Amino acid sequence: MINELKIAIAGLGTIGSGTVTLLNQQNDLLINRTGRHLRLVSCSALKMPTNLPLDNIPFFSDAREMIKTVDFDILIELIGGADDVALDIVTTTLKQARHVVTANKAMIAHHGHTLAILAEQTGVTFGFEAAVAGGIPIIKVLREGLAANSLSQIYGILNGTCNYILTTMRKSGREFNDVLAESQSLGYAEADPSLDIDGLDTAHKLSILTSLTFGTIIDFSKVHIEGIRNISTFDINSAEELGYSIKLLGIARHTENGIEQRVHPCMVPIHSSIGHVDDVFNAIVAEGPFIGRTLFEGRGAGAIPTASAVIADILDIASGRYTPTFGIPAKKLIPLQIASMKDHRSSFYIRLTVLNRSGVFAKIAAAFRDEKISMEAILQRRHVSDKEIIPVVITVHDTLEYLVLRVINRIQTIQEIVKSPYMIRMETLL
Amino acid sequence: MINELKIAIAGLGTIGSGTVTLLNQQNDLLINRTGRHLRLVSCSALKMPTNLPLDNIPFFSDAREMIKTVDFDILIELIGGADDVALDIVTTTLKQARHVVTANKAMIAHHGHTLAILAEQTGVTFGFEAAVAGGIPIIKVLREGLAANSLSQIYGILNGTCNYILTTMRKSGREFNDVLAESQSLGYAEADPSLDIDGLDTAHKLSILTSLTFGTIIDFSKVHIEGIRNISTFDINSAEELGYSIKLLGIARHTENGIEQRVHPCMVPIHSSIGHVDDVFNAIVAEGPFIGRTLFEGRGAGAIPTASAVIADILDIASGRYTPTFGIPAKKLIPLQIASMKDHRSSFYIRLTVLNRSGVFAKIAAAFRDEKISMEAILQRRHVSDKEIIPVVITVHDTLEYLVLRVINRIQTIQEIVKSPYMIRMETLL
Repeated sequence: MINELKIAIAGLGTIGSGTVTLLNQQNDLLINRTGRHLRLVSCSALKMPTNLPLDNIPFFSDAREMIKTVDFDILIELIGGADDVALDIVTTTLKQARHVVTANKAMIAHHGHTLAILAEQTGVTFGFEAAVAGGIPIIKVLREGLAANSLSQIYGILNGTCNYILTTMRKSGREFNDVLAESQSLGYAEADPSLDIDGLDTAHKLSILTSLTFGTIIDFSKVHIEGIRNISTFDINSAEELGYSIKLLGIARHTENGIEQRVHPCMVPIHSSIGHVDDVFNAIVAEGPFIGRTLFEGRGAGAIPTASAVIADILDIASGRYTPTFGIPAKKLIPLQIASMKDHRSSFYIRLTVLNRSGVFAKIAAAFRDEKISMEAILQRRHVSDKEIIPVVITVHDTLEYLVLRVINRIQTIQEIVKSPYMIRMETLL
Repeated sequence: MINELKIAIAGLGTIGSGTVTLLNQQNDLLINRTGRHLRLVSCSALKMPTNLPLDNIPFFSDAREMIKTVDFDILIELIGGADDVALDIVTTTLKQARHVVTANKAMIAHHGHTLAILAEQTGVTFGFEAAVAGGIPIIKVLREGLAANSLSQIYGILNGTCNYILTTMRKSGREFNDVLAESQSLGYAEADPSLDIDGLDTAHKLSILTSLTFGTIIDFSKVHIEGIRNISTFDINSAEELGYSIKLLGIARHTENGIEQRVHPCMVPIHSSIGHVDDVFNAIVAEGPFIGRTLFEGRGAGAIPTASAVIADILDIASGRYTPTFGIPAKKLIPLQIASMKDHRSSFYIRLTVLNRSGVFAKIAAAFRDEKISMEAILQRRHVSDKEIIPVVITVHDTLEYLVLRVINRIQTIQEIVKSPYMIRMETLL
């Protein structure tokens, strides 16, 4: 008799269905790896899917009912949402000293610390390999593989939908709204795309990576978040002209002012490690004085890559391999000392929309001069229509963000500036 | 009182010194992660280094003597060499039910299966994260992170020295021997460079990856090995012209004829994931039907990246995390069914050195025609000297290796072929 591990799955959407499929298909391999039979004992979902091999498995339409009724060892929570049912069943399960595996980054971003403390009190695993970059085992890499390191920064392309939209804009020359609508019709973007394109999903994931990288208490409220709605093909073309591509990045970096934790569009050198990571692919770079730069690239989403991450967590539990939720015991995590964005230092790209009258450039130049910011490049293209409104790009080198914002505020008051200036941070990545 | 873990290190070369340094420097972090004190209790080396904090630590010039004398929990074997002292002390230590961590890929390639069986009999860990691609935790990724997957192939740039030489040849236009000599004087290549440039080091590492990827008994004797000595700048330039770069790859691939396990120079598309991995960097791609393509890139060698991998293994042991040596219990590993190279299918680059007389191209073309291989591209450059000897490149598309070898054998007999033809396999990677 092989020692069984009883699994209950709450939520049978994309990842849940993928997990059921993989558990079936890889049954022999999983027994070989763990010496245990991973048995699916129950599922819950709003509606029972008809395309899954669930015939002899008790089904519940209410996840709370399921965990009250069924005898299980691990709850796989794939309902989603930071609160409500998901949080409720996860909390109850951990309190009962039973393991939880989840892909729910929103819940971890908001309640991760509380849940980690709870899991450690009852001595069970709270696993979330599937919450960040599905096909890339980045959680395990940070918690265990690179655990001897003191990393200086971690950053990456963490949202496949945004990367797909930006890549398609670049390749097709089509504008954001057009590409978004197409992505929605193809099922690459949600009907309500805000979570992706406004950067929240990336921010959820980044807050997890920050905690793992710096041993800090997860703190989603301290993520600086900007999405990609304002990116135009003009920006993408200008970036290419300057040798950059535009990516939505999540960045956590140790600086002398504290830890930067920010999500926003970035101009990254085309020939950098992540500059050519396109389409739905995710990529994460971890850097530190010991290992130098390490890059991980793969599929961030999709049923099966993410399900394979869910099962990696199950395999750890089945094999008795335990690691504290955030790499070190939750009580030893320290509060996140955040660096203010105003002290952020980088190069900047600023797009102005200017009514081209004599004297206007003198006014713009004066604004930069008065803040002692020297303009590095000025791109001005001939305008095709006859309205005399032209886009102008100015880049500035290595300066403080608050100075740039001050200049932008002043430029906004210039009469000939007909649209709010738009700023994109430039990252000097390898 | 914190529960101590007593560490003995055999070998204080680059990695050994790095390990001592990291253990000291990261002491607090490591206690935080494991709740245990990782205490260095003894070292051995031919000569005691003077630049390490080893003052109060018993030192031995004989590693066998050390393990006989000292009370330790983990032996860190960093002496190197497949046999002799290294194998001796590792075998003894495992038999005594004490853990072993090593970076010794030659020993694992030749004796890995025996040692894995031994370790599993006595219930201890035989860890070798540091043996492949130091800064990339690829062993853990394959054994645990991607453990739900059935991968179809794994390949990569596994030797930093070869990648540095090939990169430098491309960038500087200098020939192999010249760049090798410089690499030796800079300390990037060994005085006896054969292990690196003849592909043995890559083959050692590949044999480990094959076993982890396919659940097969490690079998170094079944690696097809070719090195980079015959690569010329002419080949590198021709490759660029065709849109490729030349890399020494280790490739393990599941095919209908069995598993291919081969190390040789490859032409890979410049815009593929690993086509632009340059200098001393390593990169590994794992592919399978579930995760798609996943890429890992980082520093393959160097004291500290590799030492951080040694410590990752120590952390697993200190935390009580156990995984079978090759991912599944050694007794369940199956013999490697190797695919014969003659059945290998790919595109090929063939460089001929031809005395340019009328009729010679007809003879060459006839050789291809008779094997029903259609030439895809022919590159012929004007020759600068007056000897009428010209290099000619022929590429052929998607055919069987034994047919290509037959053509090459026949072409060799043509009188105007003044030098052995040289063939490079072309890989259609993403």
